[in-house]
Amino acid sequence: MNDQASRLVDRPKPRLPRGLFDCTGKTLAIQQRLIGKLAEVYASYGFELLATPCIEFADALGKFLPDQDRPHEGVFSFADDDGQWLVLRYDLTAPLARYVAENYDSLALPYRRFQVGPIFRDEKPGPGRFREFIQFDADTVGAASMAADAEFCMLLADSLEALGLSRGDYVIKINNRKVLNGVLELIGIPDGAQGDAARLGVLRAMDKLDRLGIEGVAQLLGSGRKDESGDFTRGAGLAKSAIDRVLGFLQAAGGDRRAVCATLAELARGSEIGEQGAAELLEIDTILTAAGFALDRVRVDPAVVRGLAYYTGPVFEAELTFDIRGDDGRPIRFGSIGGGGRYDNLVERFLGTKVPASGVSIGVSRLASALEMSGLLSEKAVVGPVVVLVLDRDQMPRYQGMVSELRGAGIRAELYLGDGGMRAQLRYADKRGAPAVVIEGSNERATGIVTLKDMALGAERSGTIKSRAEWTKGDASQISVKRDELVRNVRAVLARSRA
Amino acid sequence: MNDQASRLVDRPKPRLPRGLFDCTGKTLAIQQRLIGKLAEVYASYGFELLATPCIEFADALGKFLPDQDRPHEGVFSFADDDGQWLVLRYDLTAPLARYVAENYDSLALPYRRFQVGPIFRDEKPGPGRFREFIQFDADTVGAASMAADAEFCMLLADSLEALGLSRGDYVIKINNRKVLNGVLELIGIPDGAQGDAARLGVLRAMDKLDRLGIEGVAQLLGSGRKDESGDFTRGAGLAKSAIDRVLGFLQAAGGDRRAVCATLAELARGSEIGEQGAAELLEIDTILTAAGFALDRVRVDPAVVRGLAYYTGPVFEAELTFDIRGDDGRPIRFGSIGGGGRYDNLVERFLGTKVPASGVSIGVSRLASALEMSGLLSEKAVVGPVVVLVLDRDQMPRYQGMVSELRGAGIRAELYLGDGGMRAQLRYADKRGAPAVVIEGSNERATGIVTLKDMALGAERSGTIKSRAEWTKGDASQISVKRDELVRNVRAVLARSRA
Repeated sequence: MNDQASRLVDRPKPRLPRGLFDCTGKTLAIQQRLIGKLAEVYASYGFELLATPCIEFADALGKFLPDQDRPHEGVFSFADDDGQWLVLRYDLTAPLARYVAENYDSLALPYRRFQVGPIFRDEKPGPGRFREFIQFDADTVGAASMAADAEFCMLLADSLEALGLSRGDYVIKINNRKVLNGVLELIGIPDGAQGDAARLGVLRAMDKLDRLGIEGVAQLLGSGRKDESGDFTRGAGLAKSAIDRVLGFLQAAGGDRRAVCATLAELARGSEIGEQGAAELLEIDTILTAAGFALDRVRVDPAVVRGLAYYTGPVFEAELTFDIRGDDGRPIRFGSIGGGGRYDNLVERFLGTKVPASGVSIGVSRLASALEMSGLLSEKAVVGPVVVLVLDRDQMPRYQGMVSELRGAGIRAELYLGDGGMRAQLRYADKRGAPAVVIEGSNERATGIVTLKDMALGAERSGTIKSRAEWTKGDASQISVKRDELVRNVRAVLARSRA
Repeated sequence: MNDQASRLVDRPKPRLPRGLFDCTGKTLAIQQRLIGKLAEVYASYGFELLATPCIEFADALGKFLPDQDRPHEGVFSFADDDGQWLVLRYDLTAPLARYVAENYDSLALPYRRFQVGPIFRDEKPGPGRFREFIQFDADTVGAASMAADAEFCMLLADSLEALGLSRGDYVIKINNRKVLNGVLELIGIPDGAQGDAARLGVLRAMDKLDRLGIEGVAQLLGSGRKDESGDFTRGAGLAKSAIDRVLGFLQAAGGDRRAVCATLAELARGSEIGEQGAAELLEIDTILTAAGFALDRVRVDPAVVRGLAYYTGPVFEAELTFDIRGDDGRPIRFGSIGGGGRYDNLVERFLGTKVPASGVSIGVSRLASALEMSGLLSEKAVVGPVVVLVLDRDQMPRYQGMVSELRGAGIRAELYLGDGGMRAQLRYADKRGAPAVVIEGSNERATGIVTLKDMALGAERSGTIKSRAEWTKGDASQISVKRDELVRNVRAVLARSRA
C-alpha cells in the first residue's frame, strides 16, 4: 500500500465521545460572564480561590457518587505506571477534603474556599447529562455552626439575583438528613452503617418524587414499581405504616419555615438524631430571618435529598421556578441548578479527627443555558474585530501596518488571512460580526485614501455584490477617508455602530 | 474487626500523585490576572474563544508528542465501555484540528480561535515539568499566508509587553522547519516519510543545544554521547561533513533578520524545500518590519526546533532573557515560556484536503511563576474580607445581620464560623488578611455601639493580647461607633487601610 492509500484508509473521524461537547460563541460568552459574576459574589462573601488538579489518587477521593453499586462505576480511572489507581475528579468537594487534610496545620480555619473547573462522570449520558462539565463550588471547612449552612442558602440566593434573576424566579430549598434518618430510625432502620443499604433504598425512592409523583415513590418504598416500558424496579420493602410515615415526612413542605420545622420535630419525636435535625433547621431559619432572607427566597422542603452519599446534616438545593418555551414551543422547566450540604466526615476519613464542613455547588453549563434561553443574562451577538481586507497580496506588509496602527490605538482589528477574493472577504467579515472593514485598492493607494465600510449599514447589500465597481457606486455604508486619518475614522464608525 | 478499627486501618493518605499540584493565594491570583490579560490581547487581535473537553478519542488526537517512541506513551489513556480508547488531551492544538474538521462547513475561514485550559502529559515529572498544567493557545486555521505566522510573533511580543515585560526582557525567535529539511536533504536524508527516523534523530540532537552546547550536539549528530553519569545516548550517525553543515545551520543565528535569511538561503541552495523555507522567513521579516516589530523583539534563530512532530514550516519560540535570583541567591533563567508553528497537515488527517494552519501556545504556570518571581506582574498580598467576630454564640443571627448589611453595601464581609475564642478569632482575621474586624460584646450591645478594629494599625499588638480588658485599653487601632453607623465607619477604615 502506498503512502496516499494508507492515509485514506486510516483517516480518523473528527468526533467527540458521547456525553462530551464543545462550547463556543454566545453560549461560551455567557458561561464566562456567569463564572465572573459568581466569583465576584463568592469573593464578597469572603471565600478564597483554590485550584486543584483534575487527576487525583482513587483512594484519596473515595467513592461517594449517587447510584453507584459497583466499584469504580461513575468515575474515569486508570493505573499509574507504579500500579496506583488514578481517577478524574467527579466533584470538587472530595479534592477539597484531600487538600484540607494535606494542609491542615497551615490553613486558617474555618477555611473558606471557592473553586471552578471541569469535573468528570463516567455515566450513561442523556439529555442535559454530560460526562464532563463545569462546577462552581464554595465550601467552609472547620465550621460546625449552622450559620455556615445558613450562609450557603444566602450565597445561592444572592448569586442568582446577581445574575439577573428576580425574586420568585428561583427558590432555595433546605432540608436535614438527620430528620430523615430520625424518621427512618423510628420505622426500624438503624442509624449508622448497619442501616446504610436500607436507607439508600429509601433515599433513592424519595429522590424520584419530582419525576414519579407521590404514588410512584410509594411503590418504590414498598414492593417495587413497573414503569411504562414494563421494566421492574425492586422497592425498599417497607411496611404500609412505615411508608405512610415517610410520605408524611416528604409532604411536610409548606409555607412558614418555623411551622414546617415544628411539623418535622413532631414527625421525628422520639429519635434523638431526628429531633436534633429539626432543631438545626430551626437555627438556620432564625439566622436567615435575621439576615432578611424570607420565605420568598428560602423554604424548608423535606423532599430535598441530594444524591451524594457523604452528606450528614443540612442539605440545600437551588431551583429555578420559571418556565421557558423551548424551540418547539413547549415549556421547559430547568429545576435544580445546584445545591449542597453538610459533610462532617469527609476530612475525618484522612485525619481521624472530626472536621465539620459544609458546601454548595452550581452546575455552570446548566445554569448558563437556563440564563441564555430565558434571556436573563443577555449577551449581544458577539461583536467581531475590524477586518482589513487584502486586495493586493504583494501589499501584505502595508495592510498589516494598518492593522498594527488600529491595534495600537486600542481597536480590535485583524488582517484577512485567507485566500478568498473581495466577495469572500466581505462574507468572512460579515460572518465574524465585524463592525467595519478597511479596503485599499491600487487606485486608493495612489491617492492616499482608504475606503471604510460600515458593516451594519451595508449588511443588506453584501449578498448581491457582483463587482468592485457596482459595490462602490452610491453606497451610503461606505466612505473614503485619508489613509493618515484611518484611526479617527474607524473610531467614528465604531461609535455609530455601537449607538 | 469493628467499624472504628477498620477505619483506622483503611485511612487514606491525603496526597497528590507526582507531577500534580494545587495552586492558591498570590500565585493563583497572578495566574488569573495573566489569563485575563492574555485574553484581552488575543481578543484585540480578533481571536475568538473556544472550549473543548479534556477527554477525546485517542485516534482523533493522534500522537505528536516529542520523544515518544512507544505507542500511548506520554498520554493518559483509558478504554470507554464500548472498547474505544479515550485520552486526556496532551495539547490544545490536536483538539482544535478535530473541532475544525468536525465543523468545517459552518466555520468562517480562516478560523481564528484562542483557548485556555488544562492539558495532560503522562511523563516522568521533574523540576518545572508537570503532568497537568494550563496552556493558553491561539491558532489560525485556513490561512496559508506567512502573514498568519508573522502575526503570532507579534501576538507573543505584544502579550508579554501587556504583562509588564520591557523590550529586551524577552525575545521571539523564529525559524523554519523547511530550511532544516532542505539542509538535511542536501546531506542525504530524504524529505517525506522515508527520512522521518533520521530527521527525528537530528532534530533531537539540535534541540539539546541549550543544554549540551555545540560540542554535545556534534556528538549526538555523530556516533553518540556519554553523559557524566556514564549513560550512553546513541547518535544520529552522520558523517563529518554532514555534521559540519548542520552545525553551520545551527549557528547561523545573528543580528539583522534579512542577513540571517540570506545565510540560510545559501546553506539550503539546491534544495527546493530549503530555498522555499528561507523565502518564507524573508516574507515574515518584511511583514514584521512593516508592522514595526524590529530586531529587539523578533529574531531569526535556526536553533529553534520545537519538539512537536506536527510542524511543517515556520516555528517560533518566546524566551525570557532576564535572570532572576532564586531563593538560594543563584540566578534562574526561565528560557522558553511558549512557542508554536505552522502545521499544514493536522486537519488534512481528517478531511483529506489541505487546510493550512498555524498557532502558538503559552505555558501559563511557567510564565506566571516567572512574572511572580520577577515582581513584574505584582499582586499585593491578597486582601481578605471584613470579619465580624462572634462573642456570644446565641447572638449569631444578630452578627449575621451585620454581615448582610456590610455585603449589601458592597463590602466584602464574613461571619466568623469557627468555635475559637476572641484570641483565636483575631488570629484568624489576621491570617485571612482582614482589613478590619467588627466586635460586639454584651456591654456594647446594651448601649447600641460596636467596636471596629483596624487590623493594619493593630497588627503588632494582636500577638500579645491576654484579655479583652487589656485589649480594649488605649489602643489607637480601635474605635467605638454607633451600631446604626456601622457601614459608614467600616468604609472609613477600609479607605484608610487602602491609602
